[in-house]
Order: sequence, then C-alpha cells, then structure tokens
Amino acid sequence: MGFASATAVTRVDEHTWLATVEPGWDINGNANGGYLLAIAGRAMAEAAGRPDPVTVSAHYLSPGKVGPLVVRCDTVKAGKRFVTLRASVATEQGTPVLAVLGAFSDLSRPADAPEYIDADLPELPAPQDCVRQVQGEDVHIAFRDQIEMRLHPDDAAWIAGRPSGRSEIRGWFRLRDGEPMDALTLLQAVDAFPPTIFNLDLPAAWTPTVELTAHVRVRPVGDWLRCRFRTRYITGGFLEEDGDVWDATGRFVAQSRQLALMPRPPEAAG
Amino acid sequence: MGFASATAVTRVDEHTWLATVEPGWDINGNANGGYLLAIAGRAMAEAAGRPDPVTVSAHYLSPGKVGPLVVRCDTVKAGKRFVTLRASVATEQGTPVLAVLGAFSDLSRPADAPEYIDADLPELPAPQDCVRQVQGEDVHIAFRDQIEMRLHPDDAAWIAGRPSGRSEIRGWFRLRDGEPMDALTLLQAVDAFPPTIFNLDLPAAWTPTVELTAHVRVRPVGDWLRCRFRTRYITGGFLEEDGDVWDATGRFVAQSRQLALMPRPPEAAG
Repeated sequence: MGFASATAVTRVDEHTWLATVEPGWDINGNANGGYLLAIAGRAMAEAAGRPDPVTVSAHYLSPGKVGPLVVRCDTVKAGKRFVTLRASVATEQGTPVLAVLGAFSDLSRPADAPEYIDADLPELPAPQDCVRQVQGEDVHIAFRDQIEMRLHPDDAAWIAGRPSGRSEIRGWFRLRDGEPMDALTLLQAVDAFPPTIFNLDLPAAWTPTVELTAHVRVRPVGDWLRCRFRTRYITGGFLEEDGDVWDATGRFVAQSRQLALMPRPPEAAG
Repeated sequence: MGFASATAVTRVDEHTWLATVEPGWDINGNANGGYLLAIAGRAMAEAAGRPDPVTVSAHYLSPGKVGPLVVRCDTVKAGKRFVTLRASVATEQGTPVLAVLGAFSDLSRPADAPEYIDADLPELPAPQDCVRQVQGEDVHIAFRDQIEMRLHPDDAAWIAGRPSGRSEIRGWFRLRDGEPMDALTLLQAVDAFPPTIFNLDLPAAWTPTVELTAHVRVRPVGDWLRCRFRTRYITGGFLEEDGDVWDATGRFVAQSRQLALMPRPPEAAG
C-alpha cells in the first residue's frame, strides 16, 4: 500500500478523523514515528483547510500499533497566513499515542523574501551508488519495505560492524514505486533513517523519540530527497537528531529536530 | 523586578493560572518571546508537579501586551518520567497569545547514560571584555534592562554598522543582579539575544517568531550562560535560529530552534 493510502484519514465530524496504522508500516510492531506524524498532519491539513505543514511539533506518548486510530483536531487560531491547530492521536480505546501542535499554510505562492544559505548540500553519490539496507534474517523492519532509502557508503559501514565514529547519516529518500511526494511526505522523511548514533561506538540499540519538530519551507519537487541527519550532543540522558532535507532540484525543503532518549547501558539499566 | 517575580503565576483553579506581563519586559510594547515562554513554563511546571521543562514548543499567536494573562494547562499524559501538557496563554479578553506543548520532568537525578559531544564550546572573551549593548536614544528596548547580555565583539560590530557577514551571535547571558538561574531561566535565555541576521547585510529589521522549541538537558549551575545562536537557512520566507547554551561550568544545558518569518524587503512588501 502506498504512502498516500496508508496515511489516509476519513472525517467523521467537525473535529474527528479516523485513520489506520497499516500493516507493514511498523518496526517490530510499532508504527514508525514519521508515519504517525504524517497521519496526524493529513488530518490537521484538512481541518486547517491549508495543505502544508509549516511547523509541526509532536510528542510521542505510546507506540502506535497496527489498527485503527482516532485523530482529533482543534483550531487554536485561524489567521490569514497560518492556521494553528492542536491534534491528538489516540487508539480507539482512548490511549494517547501522539500530541501535536502545528501551523499550516499554503506554500504554493513564492515567498518573495531574501534568501541566504550558510550550509553545504550533503555530498552523496548517485542513488544507485549508495547503500540499500538489506532486511536481516532475524530482524525484518517492515517499514523499510514501504519507502526507499539509499545511504551514503561512508555512513552505512556500521551495517557491517564498522561505525564511522561520526554521528551522522546522509542518504536519499523517496516513496516506493516513485509515488509523488508532497509537503506531508517530508514529515515521513525526517523520521525514516536509522539513528545517527549507529555510527558511534556506543551501547545503544534504539533511541525512542520524546518530541519531534519539523519545519517545511517549500514543497519538494522531483524524485529523490537528499537528507542529512546529525547528532551533536548526547548529554543528560538525551540526544537531539537534526535533519536537513533538500529536494532533487537542490532546493532546501525541510528541517527537523527530535529529542530522543539515550538509553542507559544494559549493565546500568537494572 | 526580578525574573522570578516577573514570571510568577498564581493558581486559581485546577486548570487555570493568572500571570502579568510586567512593564519593562517588552520590546516596543510587546513582551519578549522568551519571557512569555517562561511564564507559560512556570504554570506548566506547577500543573505537572515537575520543575524542569525537558522539551517545550510554543507557537506565537499575538503580541503579549503589558497587563494580565491567563494560562490554562491540560495534562495530556502523566507518565513516570515525563508529564506532557498543553498550555494556552491568552489575554483576559480571551485573545490567544501563545499555544504550548511540553514535557516536564525532574532533572535533579543524574542520567547515568553515555555522553558524547561533537561541537565546540563557543569561544568568548570574559564577560567584561565583551560588548554590552547600550540603549539607543531613539529606541529604548526596555527588556534589555531586565537581563544582562554581553556579546562577542566580533558578533557585535553590526551595532556600529559593520555586520560580520555571518548569521551568528555569541554571547553571555545572566539575570540582572546575579539572580539565580534555574531550568525555566533557560526558556528566557534562548530568546533574548538580538536576531542573528543582524550580522547579515539584509533588509530585515525584525524577524517575528512563528514557533520556538527549547530542550533543557540539565539545570544550569553558576553565574553566566555561554550562548551561541546561528541561522543557516533563510529560504521560502522563513529562517531558523538555532541556540546552543552552556552553563558557567562548561556543561551543555539547553538547545533551541525557532522558526521565524523573513520579512519581504520594503520595496516588495506593498
């Protein structure tokens, strides 16, 4: 099932949408975080009457299991340029999954403001020269069958047990079968790659997201997104993961930052 | 009036707190954004029963004028480690000023997790060798009398009409009269400095905040905070401003990112 179908939402009343965590969009039974955010974003965009998530912050409260979800949206302010809304994603039984606050707009008009960039486009070999993670025999990450990622060879050597020593992952992203990508797709793209800290020699298998904020600057154009994720500070039991995303035309399209938990090492966790 | 008093909140019922935008905490009549966030954070901390804002996202909906504010807090999830809440800051007449989503915790326990830093402490001359912005004769920014900031000389030359050409501001921050700083103070510190883009030769006088997210890693210790703010992408009519904050002991204490509007140049704005 494609991304648009798997994140579809159905309005049932002024404030309520139904959605489904589709089988295959999970990692060990829990829905991917970007996928959940895209579901919330789709309902919020409908509620706002504006298609584009300009800035969306989500708190991850409990895992999203395969099955039905209820999304409730409440408009906080309907302004001329932005509509600001709160959303709650919960199970049918009412268990909170996601709490979201976001501002939506229509990014189809050019901004007509000065531009300035003080950052390098991440250097990436062509997609066919990057690394496609092969599904393991013991751990099958179903979510990875739904999207396409190609990792920079230098940032993918941890797969073979040789972490780069730098908490960075660069790579290409697109939807499967070349499905067109819109601004909501960017909410998926910013939380799809393996954790940056897989490239460090640290005893961490997973880093649960506490909160993720994504900013969308313009709608993406073209077939692949060029992405860079980086972690600079692992302190106090937390880490941030910053994402910068460009489209195939070299346009900077989105930025993300998540706060995640740095698990205690197994020997200290008891 | 000190920071703790100026951000004080009084609970009036289970969900409601009263606060006041004190005279002197404004810039041209509008309350500083970090100050408003600290007021919201103080009410949220009380509602949560946890003192420390681990991650807080605020959308700025209308200016906070001097006078009374009403803060409403609703708990989304009370977990073992985090209490997640929504807050709304509004005028007495009900005009929304701020919409907030945050997770609060108790950061007094050491995290006992691996640490790793891939970033430099910003190099700063001692506070007495940095630049204290003098209030102008034509524009008096009242807020600046309430806190103390000392800018890196290289990043302060724009005051004399010589922007550095790099969208960065480094400097020291503390509360006036050496008032002690807690985790809530960091919400103030991340939105106190002049806009980074004052160091670019761009026709922008001000950059209104759309949304600001702050992460607090540990409580600050000591007398001055060492801060660096940086903007890498001004595109699509938006810019981000990223803040990294260390305390006087060299500990990384907080991180922030705000999405702000890049105004159109005056000739195009009409």
